[in-house]
Amino acid sequence: MTYLKDNFLLTNKTAEKLYNDYAKDMPIFDYHCHLPEVQILENKEFNDVFEIWLKGDHYKWRLMRNFGIDEEYITGDKSNKEKFVAYCKTLGTAFGNPLYHWSQVELKEFFNCEIEINEDNAETIWNWCNDYIKLNKITPQSLIEKSNVTHIFTTNEIFDDTSTFEKIAKKDYKFKVIPAFRADKIMNVEAVGYDKTIEKLEALVGEIKDIDALEVAIEKRLNEFIKVGTTASDIALQNVYEITDKADADKVFKQAIKGEKISDEQAKVFKGYFTYFLFKLYAKYDIRTELHVGAMRNNNAKMLKKLGLDTGYDSIAEDNSIRLMSRLFDRLNDEDSLPKTVIFNLNPKLNPEIMSLIGCFQDSSVSGKMQYGPAWWFLDNKVGMEKHLEDLTATGHIATFVGMLTDSRSLLSYPRHHYFRRILCNYLGTLMENNEMTQDIELVGKVVQNVSYNNSMKYFKMM
Amino acid sequence: MTYLKDNFLLTNKTAEKLYNDYAKDMPIFDYHCHLPEVQILENKEFNDVFEIWLKGDHYKWRLMRNFGIDEEYITGDKSNKEKFVAYCKTLGTAFGNPLYHWSQVELKEFFNCEIEINEDNAETIWNWCNDYIKLNKITPQSLIEKSNVTHIFTTNEIFDDTSTFEKIAKKDYKFKVIPAFRADKIMNVEAVGYDKTIEKLEALVGEIKDIDALEVAIEKRLNEFIKVGTTASDIALQNVYEITDKADADKVFKQAIKGEKISDEQAKVFKGYFTYFLFKLYAKYDIRTELHVGAMRNNNAKMLKKLGLDTGYDSIAEDNSIRLMSRLFDRLNDEDSLPKTVIFNLNPKLNPEIMSLIGCFQDSSVSGKMQYGPAWWFLDNKVGMEKHLEDLTATGHIATFVGMLTDSRSLLSYPRHHYFRRILCNYLGTLMENNEMTQDIELVGKVVQNVSYNNSMKYFKMM
Amino acid sequence: MTYLKDNFLLTNKTAEKLYNDYAKDMPIFDYHCHLPEVQILENKEFNDVFEIWLKGDHYKWRLMRNFGIDEEYITGDKSNKEKFVAYCKTLGTAFGNPLYHWSQVELKEFFNCEIEINEDNAETIWNWCNDYIKLNKITPQSLIEKSNVTHIFTTNEIFDDTSTFEKIAKKDYKFKVIPAFRADKIMNVEAVGYDKTIEKLEALVGEIKDIDALEVAIEKRLNEFIKVGTTASDIALQNVYEITDKADADKVFKQAIKGEKISDEQAKVFKGYFTYFLFKLYAKYDIRTELHVGAMRNNNAKMLKKLGLDTGYDSIAEDNSIRLMSRLFDRLNDEDSLPKTVIFNLNPKLNPEIMSLIGCFQDSSVSGKMQYGPAWWFLDNKVGMEKHLEDLTATGHIATFVGMLTDSRSLLSYPRHHYFRRILCNYLGTLMENNEMTQDIELVGKVVQNVSYNNSMKYFKMM
Repeated sequence: MTYLKDNFLLTNKTAEKLYNDYAKDMPIFDYHCHLPEVQILENKEFNDVFEIWLKGDHYKWRLMRNFGIDEEYITGDKSNKEKFVAYCKTLGTAFGNPLYHWSQVELKEFFNCEIEINEDNAETIWNWCNDYIKLNKITPQSLIEKSNVTHIFTTNEIFDDTSTFEKIAKKDYKFKVIPAFRADKIMNVEAVGYDKTIEKLEALVGEIKDIDALEVAIEKRLNEFIKVGTTASDIALQNVYEITDKADADKVFKQAIKGEKISDEQAKVFKGYFTYFLFKLYAKYDIRTELHVGAMRNNNAKMLKKLGLDTGYDSIAEDNSIRLMSRLFDRLNDEDSLPKTVIFNLNPKLNPEIMSLIGCFQDSSVSGKMQYGPAWWFLDNKVGMEKHLEDLTATGHIATFVGMLTDSRSLLSYPRHHYFRRILCNYLGTLMENNEMTQDIELVGKVVQNVSYNNSMKYFKMM
Repeated sequence: MTYLKDNFLLTNKTAEKLYNDYAKDMPIFDYHCHLPEVQILENKEFNDVFEIWLKGDHYKWRLMRNFGIDEEYITGDKSNKEKFVAYCKTLGTAFGNPLYHWSQVELKEFFNCEIEINEDNAETIWNWCNDYIKLNKITPQSLIEKSNVTHIFTTNEIFDDTSTFEKIAKKDYKFKVIPAFRADKIMNVEAVGYDKTIEKLEALVGEIKDIDALEVAIEKRLNEFIKVGTTASDIALQNVYEITDKADADKVFKQAIKGEKISDEQAKVFKGYFTYFLFKLYAKYDIRTELHVGAMRNNNAKMLKKLGLDTGYDSIAEDNSIRLMSRLFDRLNDEDSLPKTVIFNLNPKLNPEIMSLIGCFQDSSVSGKMQYGPAWWFLDNKVGMEKHLEDLTATGHIATFVGMLTDSRSLLSYPRHHYFRRILCNYLGTLMENNEMTQDIELVGKVVQNVSYNNSMKYFKMM
Repeated sequence: MTYLKDNFLLTNKTAEKLYNDYAKDMPIFDYHCHLPEVQILENKEFNDVFEIWLKGDHYKWRLMRNFGIDEEYITGDKSNKEKFVAYCKTLGTAFGNPLYHWSQVELKEFFNCEIEINEDNAETIWNWCNDYIKLNKITPQSLIEKSNVTHIFTTNEIFDDTSTFEKIAKKDYKFKVIPAFRADKIMNVEAVGYDKTIEKLEALVGEIKDIDALEVAIEKRLNEFIKVGTTASDIALQNVYEITDKADADKVFKQAIKGEKISDEQAKVFKGYFTYFLFKLYAKYDIRTELHVGAMRNNNAKMLKKLGLDTGYDSIAEDNSIRLMSRLFDRLNDEDSLPKTVIFNLNPKLNPEIMSLIGCFQDSSVSGKMQYGPAWWFLDNKVGMEKHLEDLTATGHIATFVGMLTDSRSLLSYPRHHYFRRILCNYLGTLMENNEMTQDIELVGKVVQNVSYNNSMKYFKMM
């Protein structure tokens, strides 16, 4: 039996009460994830625990490499079971690492398996979970419904076929699946094959020979997304760039669609204007913008060649761009075109800068118009979440916070919502026990429920 | 009744003893604030709680905007009472925000009002406080004396009329009011209307046609300030600039007083030299220098146009200038012209850099010559203060610390000194309870008293 | 009697058990320090406590300057005893400063002296310790053996005479002393007297007229070091530079050996290539590389002139070079030339960036190939160590960590290993008590023992 108890992460009675009476049973709205909608539509049964739990999960791969596991057991030719055992071995002593908690909680919540994960127990867990899968016919739908999820926002490229979402809507699911609109592949003008990317878009909307046509094309696609319920968009940038002139961006774009090489400087010119354009567009349609900043991607060229993107070789960027972020928001605000925005920042040293900046652009259009998103990726762990709450409450207003998401490619990540709620309840419960805030548990419980579910539902216009 | 108890923020018996027996009754020396001296001189009675508690307080405005309150209820045309109610509503669930504590403590200490602040209680609090004001004839003098304040350093521009301080000195007050000298309006050479600013100075000291004349003028004004007791000066910079040549600064200055536009680059040239000049001047007269770095101001142009400066639209700057700060202090030190300096830094990521740097310029001229000032503005909260104490003690010597100030425009901010003292006592008391430091409470109590009051009194030559 | 108890820093029973049953009695491998090997060879008895405890310790000097002690009592002409008393006075109220703990622990562990350090007790402590020294014939050997040290890596310049290590090996010591190889004096091409430095190297290996010859010379010296057991090297950089062309570096080198002045830009050109060369060389011989980044040295020119290098006037640099670090590691990795590397970073704001970066270069060549070294210099204190463990476990794998070192010039610094172990045991013990990890104390104890000693022994090929 594992160390996981009912009061996991809840260090006092008030925290327990807040969690059990207010947070635990709230449904889940996962307003940003990377689940493939086709997988949800097809709804195939899984074959073994490896397929659900380890396959494609680059968080877990990284930890295995840290422990010195050979790549053969990570992304190589070893069997599913051998890879599973290698991961269990890795996890046995990974004290303090978020995966040490996530993985154990996933086994408990989805497989009713409370065996402690380590090398000795690997075989037993393998058998337990696979038996459970066979007995219970585990599918994407069953996993999502078991987690009490009502709404999922997937993240979709501008080209993606929105009819998949129509098909899912016709299914008898207890949850809705809606795409967030993303034009990152259009943003990354310096990428090899950019001309082919634009051709892909042309296939959907007709010829695009300049930036004017590009803007029209994007707006068309956004309208297609809106038809299937889209209220959110997503932009990922290493950092924010200076706003540039449209004419200069146009020059870069024309060169790029000819298949010519685009320099880093040219890319900045394009991105500076294009970011500004997207924000304005999203403001026009009252689409919420989720802005991700601070990742330095593909540090390891050798493994990029071998395994491709998103395989565990990204890290936190050093860039400071708070001045440019200020200029961007200010210009948009001045033109009445600043959309409701959630900022996800990967570099914790920038928390105070960004949090204090967005406080300069709040208004009464909605409660918490500019949101500082929850702890993300490398920060998505107990210490990171606690720090996020401390920083957020010190500079902002907790009651307006839209709360947690999974940002995950895995169907097993929903327990992270409960993990976050435990930390939220423990944070507030501890302040209450220490007489640092009101003793009115009804009032606090309402805030907990709002942060757990209602705020995001309202912010993204799902209720 | 509120959550505020006698042991607020004191988590153990030793902390309580330190606070009650040593800290609580020490007087207050507020060595940096923005109180208008004329208000203290005029000493008018207040009309209602809005006037004392909310009017002009951009900290509170920001929180209301965060909560989504309409600007009409913040700086707009709504009545004092409507604005008061909107603030109470905002505060009711602002758990963890420093204003949640400050505001509640202010009501308790100044109006004997222990009703919890929230929307339901707003009307009752409004009546209670206004009745209290009428019964007790609340004036600036009464508020300051009630707070056991002995000395106040206001922050005054070089032009300000020092006779106000002479007049206050003749009053029968139990406290002294002394101006700190500030030449920021002279520093900001790029500001619109700089020529008029210099004309204002010329009206006091005669013609200023070049930087030599400017230096003479500033020294004259400083001597006027010294006559009314000034021992401190204040410089606010977004970041520290490279020391430049006087001749280059002179060129920029001459252009500026003609009313010509000054570029950002030119402004840096002027500020680089002018900062160096001011430090040398302050060293010559043994004037302590309070250096504020790290604010990025006026992010929201639209609201700047509408409401002006200091209305809640500033944030934390990204700038790193530790190398330039090192060069500035080193050159001054080499020329025996480094004044005693208190550095206030707004960006917490720079704490370790600055703290380790100033350790390179300590000497025996005074205990703690180079001071790392207390947590400031966005950091002036429980977590920020605790972090500051942790960082300060790790790299410096707690017993020399000059301690807390208010940095406030409000007469109700003195309880922040007690708030800080509670955190200080809890920090030391907890180390004592954990057997991580001496058990000699007399010795520790003496340090607490020195940090609370005596150190700053000595450092600023008030005793 | 002091506040030091058996459960110092151990806040619960599990932490105590981990420390007492697993950590306490593990031997010490000090894999990075600055002890002079000649002192160990000569093994002279000390005359008084000042000689062992204060002489040459610039950490202690800095704290005294912070407290306002006159330089006469620090590095000046005052007697050993007067300086000792001044330090005791300084320490009496230095609550929270790491020296407050280090110094008290040193007296206890090496002189069996449990008298609290302060001005009143200074005389008594002086006499106690000096009596103890006389009675016990304290020498370097006796101090090292008393500390249960099995291996020491000193840090040696490329010129250093390796025969000292041969002589030490022939002594009847219970520990081994092995040099880590350092070419920093060759790296610092901009230093005054660089031509003389190269002449010194030429005296050992023959003429060096260009960078090709320099590379041969360095490889020769490295092989001499390897003969006396070297498995580690050391590189100290303010920050990481861009990799440059060998031909450009050669030009700078040729200019430098003529005694010409080298600009900062030229120095960067040389260092960019030379760092890359060193890493490749170390990879070739499977030499572990200890990379120190983030110090800004010699901030105070006046004191540099008076006292020289390493006298307490260094600080934390602002530089961000994570992108360049990524480019360096990536290129080496691509060329199968990335050595096993331990990174020591002085600026805590960069912890998440560096920790996430090195996770991109882990592989199965060894468990924990890329190490994030323990809290260093200004961070080497309780809060810094706790933060380091939090950050390390959040992004990496605790079980592979090579653990603590002293980085010290003093023979009394070994208790820092125990200090670290207490913090490690308290960190894990607290997680166990809170049911946040396994209750299997044997398993956790094994990890504690590995981090305390075995991991570093294996990583540096000492077992």
